[in-house]
Formats: sequence, structure tokens, C-alpha cells
Amino acid sequence: MTTAASIVRPGLPTPTGLLGRARWLVAPALDEAVLRLSPELRSAVRHHLDGGGKFVRAGLVLLSAAAVGGEERDGVVGAVAVELVHNFSLVHDDIIDGDLERRHRPTVWAEYGIGQAIITGDALVTLALQLLLEEPTPTRVAAAGRLAEATQEMISGQAEDMAFEQRPELSVEECLHMETGKTGALLACAASLGAVLVGAPAPVVDALADFGRHLGIAFQAIDDVLGIWGDPGVTGKPVGNDLRLHKKTLPVAVASAPGSGAPEALASLLSAELSDSDVERAARMLEECGARERTMAIGETHLRAALGALERVPLQLQATAELAAIAHYVTARDR
Amino acid sequence: MTTAASIVRPGLPTPTGLLGRARWLVAPALDEAVLRLSPELRSAVRHHLDGGGKFVRAGLVLLSAAAVGGEERDGVVGAVAVELVHNFSLVHDDIIDGDLERRHRPTVWAEYGIGQAIITGDALVTLALQLLLEEPTPTRVAAAGRLAEATQEMISGQAEDMAFEQRPELSVEECLHMETGKTGALLACAASLGAVLVGAPAPVVDALADFGRHLGIAFQAIDDVLGIWGDPGVTGKPVGNDLRLHKKTLPVAVASAPGSGAPEALASLLSAELSDSDVERAARMLEECGARERTMAIGETHLRAALGALERVPLQLQATAELAAIAHYVTARDR
Repeated sequence: MTTAASIVRPGLPTPTGLLGRARWLVAPALDEAVLRLSPELRSAVRHHLDGGGKFVRAGLVLLSAAAVGGEERDGVVGAVAVELVHNFSLVHDDIIDGDLERRHRPTVWAEYGIGQAIITGDALVTLALQLLLEEPTPTRVAAAGRLAEATQEMISGQAEDMAFEQRPELSVEECLHMETGKTGALLACAASLGAVLVGAPAPVVDALADFGRHLGIAFQAIDDVLGIWGDPGVTGKPVGNDLRLHKKTLPVAVASAPGSGAPEALASLLSAELSDSDVERAARMLEECGARERTMAIGETHLRAALGALERVPLQLQATAELAAIAHYVTARDR
Repeated sequence: MTTAASIVRPGLPTPTGLLGRARWLVAPALDEAVLRLSPELRSAVRHHLDGGGKFVRAGLVLLSAAAVGGEERDGVVGAVAVELVHNFSLVHDDIIDGDLERRHRPTVWAEYGIGQAIITGDALVTLALQLLLEEPTPTRVAAAGRLAEATQEMISGQAEDMAFEQRPELSVEECLHMETGKTGALLACAASLGAVLVGAPAPVVDALADFGRHLGIAFQAIDDVLGIWGDPGVTGKPVGNDLRLHKKTLPVAVASAPGSGAPEALASLLSAELSDSDVERAARMLEECGARERTMAIGETHLRAALGALERVPLQLQATAELAAIAHYVTARDR
């Protein structure tokens, strides 16, 4: 449940070839699908979708079709379904987090009210499964089953995240489990759904799913670092925003592990209301005990695991190179 | 999106045979399904489910399996899925309507917060489709497709209902369309899903769906009458509650139709803040212009249409008699 806007940050070179193709192939099909929604819902859906979105997940679906010898267009219905589920999660998460802005416009709930935002999300997730089930070929049915599982895993991750906010500390394993659900599950689904739709054998599908899942964790680790030490001009959020909100992110989990070397003062600092100078102090303590570096190392481990998964099975070369390029792109550190 | 508690009212003789069987067969499978949800979500789900629920929709699914010559147990997975979707809609509707109590306990959002209630509903609707898709036989896949369509139609009905609240008036056709979506769609799905799971031919499935859809409208017509003139001791809501909330129900739509004979004062009365005596006056005006009687007649027309649908195709006798009994029961007027 991470924004496309935060995956693809401004100021970075984008893999425009793929993302351009993804938009060109998928956006019209997505628009057509939205026309099937109740007219009373379409305005809120268009408000949300017209704000942007980079089609990273759609691109992964298309590439995974091509990687197993299919055509990118074989993945389009899956790409639309994944984008619908992704946007469902954004619309509902914005209510949950009380976020007022996304993609430089008011969030759906801020513009249309909580009730309308709830049913907008409901309609999007339902539409995703309707699309895959309306021509119930074995591959589409398999895709629908996987998408439903991934959606449930994503919701579980969100539930864990909310539950963890109430807890004083969190192990690194718990944090990784939550982030695997919140971010990894849908990326795993996206990176394998095209292969499912083309009818690829299970080991190939599994390898592509592993690629997506590890990529999700790697992305999330780096996103957590940026949430504390990122340049506000690039992230669009105030410095140390996650610390101020008491978010249980990886750097905090790493620092709270026994033997982390974090000073005792850190825990009490993190659990209280934080002034600007407290945020700065906490970020410095986290950095000094190595939490930033270790979180980046976790991210790199998972990026390597993602790339390694692509080497486990025979895949079409060009598409695999583009998958690797996307992986490097969404985890790029120079920002 | 109507509560089971409001379909089956206290003080009425219940078709305990069927509803008892439905509970006995379906509740354990429902409980087992809930165990698959994230532990962080289960408490809210159990809080909601343990409040009660009469298993009317589950009963319809079981009967529709038996009506086409199957066993009631052939419908269990469908019954669980329909109950999950029904409860998803209750949890989200309670947020939307700001309702604090359901089944004599706090609603999920009132007890756990809006965020938790949102993801609780999300998890329930996703689980419903997961269940049907995890053994993707052709009949289960067909059932999943129908359930997704019905869910979308129900969401559309809710969207229309919300949009209509902003409008000064509403035609009878618009009101019936909205109520068909809100209440008829899931009842149509429930009353045919068992037949789908048993592999009944399309005309039989369609007849059972028509039964459920008309039954939903008939029920809703009578519910609308009770929302204005019902005995608060039985309905559990204050007299004239729907009028006070400016709900666009059938009696109001009937009275606002051209040539209805309703006095001009009614429209302005209904659009303003209503005191207790205003509510009484409005109810009397509605009754005097025949809106109550005409709404009951609409209900009876749809009840007859529901029962007529059961005669269109050959069905197993005992199950059909029970379907008819349920139809009479949920539309009983003596309350």
C-alpha cells in the first residue's frame, strides 16, 4: 500500500520506454473498465485516477507476460486489475491515514467525503475481480485467485501496520512481515500475473513473484530511510515525518533490537511528542547507531534476492533486462 | 444493503427449520473462513459476527441448491461467501450512515475506529471471492463471477442512495432501481448461487435469481413503510425515522410523483428540519394521499412476481415450498 508517486520520484531518470508503453497499452483499458461503474461513482474515480499514477505495477504485469514468451498485450487485463486494486488501496489508505493530498490534488475522501471514498474503493477492488472473471478461461481464473490472495495479504499488512502503531517496539522480523504484506504482496502479484495469464509453468511464475516480493521489500526499506533522512524537496514530506508520526519503520525496528547499540534515550524520545529538534536528535541517534546503514543493507540484500530470482528460471532476455532496470530504478539511492 | 436484523424482526414466527439448518451448516464454515484472516482483524470481525445475524441469505443459497436437485450442503461455500459479502456491506454502511449500534452492540467503527472498520470490510469481501476461487471448478468460478457482479450492483445501489439524499425529489422508477441494487442484487445472487454451484441450467438459475430480486424489492417496500409507520417497539427505531433523515424511500417517491394527490405543503415539509409534530404531520399527509397503500401494493406486486418466478421452471417441491415460506416471512405485514 505504497503510492506510485513515492515509488517513482521526480528528478530521477525514468524507464520511460516501459512506463510509456504501459500507460499506452493499459490506460485506455482502465478507462473503459471505469465506464462500467455506477455513474454516481465515476466522478470520484476519475478525480483519483486523473491525478496521475506511473503505471509501475502495470508495467511489471506486461513485462512478466513478455518474460515468459508472451506478448505484452496478453497482460493488459491483468495490468488493469492490478492497477484497480492498487488504487483501491490508495483511496482507502488515505482515509485511514487522514491524508489530505495525493498527486497534488485533494484525496478522494477530502474532496467527496469519507462515505463516498469508502464505496469508491469498494467498487474498484470488486471491479478488478469482475474483469478477470468475466471471461473465465483457466489462466484468467488463476490470475483472479492470485489477485484475491494478494489483496488479502495487502490488507493484512495494513492491519499489522495499524496494530503496530500502538506498540512501543517491534522486531525487525515483524516489521519486514508487515512491509512484505503492505508493499511486497501486490508487487509479487504484478510481477507474475502476466506470466500466469500466458500460462507459464509454476516454477517460472513463482520466480517472478519472488522477484516482485523482494523488490517490494527493497523499495520499502529505502522508502523508510527516505522517510527519516530524505530531502523534503524530493520526497514532498517534512524531514523526519515518519518519526514525528511514530511510524514503526525498519530503521526504528533495527535500532530497537537488542544489542543494536542505540542509546537508551532514543526509545523514550521516539515514544513522546517530538519537537523539530527532537526529530533531528532522534535521526542523528539512529544514524550513529548504524540503523540507517543496516536498513540500506537490508534493502540491498532484497534487491539482490530480487535480481537473483530472475536468474533461477529461463526467461526472455529483453523483458528480463527491463525487469532488472525497473528494480534498479525503484530502489535508486541517489536522491 | 439491509440488515438481517431488519429482515427478520423479533416477535414474528421464524421459519426456524430452515434458518436453524442454515446456521448449523454455514456458521462453522464461516468461522473457519474467518480464521484465515489476519489475527489483527479477527477481533473486529468476531465482534461483528457474534452480534447475531439470521442467516436468511445463507438459507436462500442452501435452498437454491436443493431446489434444483442438489444437497443443501452443496451450497455451503456459496452461503459462506454471500454472508461475508453481506457483512462487508453492513460494516461499511454503518460507517457511511454513522450508525452507532447494530445487533444491540456497538458497530465495528464505533468500537474499533473508522480505519479498522474499513479494512475489516475490505477483508470480508476479499475473503468471499478467495473462498470460491481456491478450488476453481467451473461451477465455483461461475459463482464467484456472479457474486462479484452482485457486489458491484449493491455498491452502485449504495452510491445512488447517497446521491439521492442530495436531491429534492426522486421518481418511483429511480427509487426502485436504487433499492433493486441495494437489496435485490445480493438476494438475487443468494437465491440462485446454490443452483449455480450444483450446475443447474441457465433458465433455472435465472428464475431463482428473479425470485430473489423481486423478493428484495418487496421486502424493501415494506421496510420503507415500516421506516415511517412502524412500531418503534418492533423496528427498534424512532417513529418516522426515515422522514427525519430525509431518506428518499418509496412512499416519498410515490407521493412526489405528478398527480399523486399529495398536498403541496408535503414537499416543503419533507425538505426542512422536522420536529416531532412535523414528522407526524408528514406521515399523515403521506398516508392520506395513499402513498402508504400504493407502496404496499408495489411490495405485493413484487412478492407475487417472486412467487411467480418459482413457477416458471421445474423445481424440487419441498425446497420450493420453503423458498415461498421465506418470501412470505420476510414480507409479513402483521407487525
